[in-house]
This record gives sequence, C-alpha cells and structure tokens, in this order.
Amino acid sequence: MMRGRFITLEGGEGAGKSTLLSGLEDWLRAQRLEVVRTREPGGTALGEALRMLLLDPAQAGLSAEAELLLMFAARAELVRKLIEPALTAGRWVLSDRYTDASYAYQGGGRGQPVARIRALEQWAALDLKPDRTLLLDLPVAAGRARAAERDHPDRIERENDDFFERVRSVYRARAAAEPWRFSLLDANAMPEVVLAAAQAALQPLLAARA
Amino acid sequence: MMRGRFITLEGGEGAGKSTLLSGLEDWLRAQRLEVVRTREPGGTALGEALRMLLLDPAQAGLSAEAELLLMFAARAELVRKLIEPALTAGRWVLSDRYTDASYAYQGGGRGQPVARIRALEQWAALDLKPDRTLLLDLPVAAGRARAAERDHPDRIERENDDFFERVRSVYRARAAAEPWRFSLLDANAMPEVVLAAAQAALQPLLAARA
Ligand SMILES: Nc1ncnc2c1ncn2[C@@H]1O[C@H](COP(=O)(O)OP(=O)(O)OP(=O)(O)O)[C@@H](O)[C@H]1O
Ligand SMILES: Nc1ncnc2c1ncn2[C@@H]1O[C@H](COP(=O)(O)OP(=O)(O)OP(=O)(O)O)[C@@H](O)[C@H]1O
Ligand SMILES: [Mg+2]
Ligand SMILES: [Mg+2]
Repeated sequence: MMRGRFITLEGGEGAGKSTLLSGLEDWLRAQRLEVVRTREPGGTALGEALRMLLLDPAQAGLSAEAELLLMFAARAELVRKLIEPALTAGRWVLSDRYTDASYAYQGGGRGQPVARIRALEQWAALDLKPDRTLLLDLPVAAGRARAAERDHPDRIERENDDFFERVRSVYRARAAAEPWRFSLLDANAMPEVVLAAAQAALQPLLAARA
Repeated sequence: MMRGRFITLEGGEGAGKSTLLSGLEDWLRAQRLEVVRTREPGGTALGEALRMLLLDPAQAGLSAEAELLLMFAARAELVRKLIEPALTAGRWVLSDRYTDASYAYQGGGRGQPVARIRALEQWAALDLKPDRTLLLDLPVAAGRARAAERDHPDRIERENDDFFERVRSVYRARAAAEPWRFSLLDANAMPEVVLAAAQAALQPLLAARA
C-alpha cells in the first residue's frame, strides 16, 4: 500500500481556504483517490470541543500560552487518530490549516517564541510535515472585507489589523524559507484561477504516484 | 501588602485531599486569613470545561501528549487568572492538586518525559512553586477502596493498579527530593489526625507572617 499524501491549506481569514478545499476534494476524488478532509482546530471529538472553546468570544482574555497548548492538544489527537492512520491506509489528507497556522497565529500574532512552537511540533505533532502546503495569500483588508459578509466574528477574528499583518508576514516568510513544500497562491484571483493554480501545484504529487 | 502563601494538596485517588482541604480552609479562615480554594484541573471557566473533557470516560484513548497539554492549558489559565492575582492581593491559595500531579500522573503514570513536563512548568505555569505541598500518602489498594464507595469512576480512575503505583512512587520521590517544600502525611490516619499533622506542617508559614 502506497502512503497517501498530506496537503494543507493556509492563509488568513477569508482567504478562500474552505472554497478551495471543496474544489480540490472533488478534483482528487475524480481521479479515484480516497480523500479525507479535515480542519484545525478540530477533526476529532476532542478537537471539535476544543475548537468551540478556542473560538468562543466568551474566552476573550485567554492567555497566549493556553491558546498555544490547546491548539497543540487538538493537533496531537488529530495527527494520531486521523492523519497518520489515513496516510498509512493510502488515503490523501486535505487539512484546512495545520502547524504553519500556529507559527503564524500563536507565533506571529500572539508573540509566542518560535522555539516553543517548534518543540511542540516535534513531540506533540510527531514532527509530521505536509507534503505540500498551499498558502492563499491576500492583503489583510481584502480578507477582512470577505469575512465581514459572514456571521458574527469569532474570538480570533476580533483581533486588529496589526495582528493579521503579523500573521500574513510569518506565513510569507515560511513559504519563502521552504519553497519545496509551499506554493504561494494569489488569493485575489477568481476562484477558478486559484483552483487551477492549486491543481498545478499538486500535479507533481499525482505524477509521482502513477 | 504581604504576599499570600500558596499551599497545594497532592495524593492518589481517595487519599483524602478534599476532606483535608475543607478542614484547612476553616482553620485558616478562623485565623482571619483570606483564603481562596481551587482545584486542578479546573478553577477557571476554561479549566472547568477542560476538566469535563479530561475526566470524561468517553475520551478513553486520549493520547498522553494531548492529556499533558490540556492539563497545562488549564494550569496556564489558573496561574495567571486566579493564583498569582490572589497571592499578590495577600490571599492564601489552597489548591487540590497542582504541577506535582503532572509529574506523577502524566509523567509516572503515562510515561511522559520529565524534561517535557519541566519545560511546560517553566513557560506555561510561570515556574510558580507552592510554598508548601502536603502529600497524602496511602497504599493504592486503600485509596481504591475509599474511592470505590463513590459514584462512577472517571477516565483516570479507570486505570489499573500499576498506573497508580507509579503515580505514588513519583509523588514519594518528589517529596524526598524537596523536603523543604513537601510534608509527607500518612493518609491512613483518622481525618482529625491528618488535619492536625497538616496544621503542624503549615505552622511555620503562619508564624513567619506574625
Ligand atoms: N478567490 C476568491 N475570490 C473572491 N471571493 C472568494 C474567493 N474565494 C472565496 N471567496 C469568498 O470569500 C469568502 C471567504 O471564503 P472562504 O470561506 O473559502 O475563506 P476561508 O479562508 O475558509 O475563511 P476562514 O478562515 O474564515 O475559514 C466566501 O464568501 C467565499 O465565497
Ligand atoms: N483520613 C481518612 N480516613 C478514612 N477515610 C477518609 C479519610 N479522609 C477521607 N476519607 C474518606 O475517603 C473518601 C475519599 O476522600 P476524599 O474525597 O477527601 O479524597 P480525595 O483525595 O479528594 O479523592 P479524589 O482524588 O477522588 O478527589 C471519602 O469518602 C472520605 O470521607
Ligand atoms: Mg474556512
Ligand atoms: Mg477530591
């Protein structure tokens, strides 16, 4: 059994991750791949319970340390109970956010030290890296405008523009530092254009399989 | 304003921590101290929500890593939102379990490395140490017999005797290694005898205050 591929989508609020994920899911299934879609925080019973706590505006004032620990608690479960077993069974895993989001949000946004996040990545997330990470890059104002059309902002969406500028800048720096893993996609493009760019970025993974 | 004192109670299941805590609380209040009683995991809105998840038998199979992270997420909030502010305001804080319990349960019981727990203690729990820790020591079988008289066992109480032997042995080793902080109390004694021993152990803290 050939090991599946692990693909993550990253980007700021309203960048179009969920939209792209649906397009990719259909496209990969059409190629007869078994696809597992998940999201962070979430994806397991524990993770979804923690997601509710983490995004609840009533938790305003949650310390950055507790936030980081909860993100990795959810991820520890997700990696062990869902992602690794699926990959081992030959399935492709598509995740709406993963560890890069902790570097961007808890690191860049909240100022948690990189070494702290790196240590957690190693022991809590088994040091599991995506085979490919699609970064949907979008100016902060544009993402905010898109997200504003939706329901009530959650606890993290209530942060200010400076916070989201730091998030974006960490994402871009990580993409620049690991070009073999990241694909930087212009999230300002039309959804069909973004999907086509994402398909092109994943083509080498599909080709390697044949 | 003189800083308050931080006192923790530790020990296995059914050792008598909650019973002793009530006795100590009354005794300290009778001496006109302002006392804040708390417990772990718990003590804050987030902590109590995490306690429900951690003790829920439906979470059987929770990874040791996620358990450790959740314990420290609850503790990060407890230290910052309740313990430190109370101590600064001159209050005495009595806690039913604290960081020693992570060394005993997640370390001894579940095999998480000491260095990992130590690192979390430093950054997540501000490296805050109790002024005095009362360890209620009891043979595993005796504690189990006491706890069995109560309601349904929670997720952790369902562990086997070997698990609780390791918990006890880590607790005893820590007490032996830091005798200036720990008081080892024989939890087999009658409740009044345990309370008197605890009062004697705390007497120096009270005297220093006068
Ligand atoms: N390429 C695009 N161009 C214009 N609008 C888009 C594009 N992609 C998605 N949208 C719209 O922007 C909004 C946010 O998209 P989506 O929910 O996919 O973003 P997201 O990154 O998943 O957001 P969140 O981080 O909040 O989950 C939606 O209304 C969606 O229809
Ligand atoms: N010194 C004692 N001798 C005999 N029985 C005791 C003593 N202290 C407490 N008990 C009884 O043992 C049971 C467990 O006591 P308690 O709830 O105080 O333990 P605990 O350490 O808080 O347990 P848990 O870890 O489950 O919270 C209760 O029924 C209590 O009345
Ligand atoms: Mg989305
Ligand atoms: Mg108790």
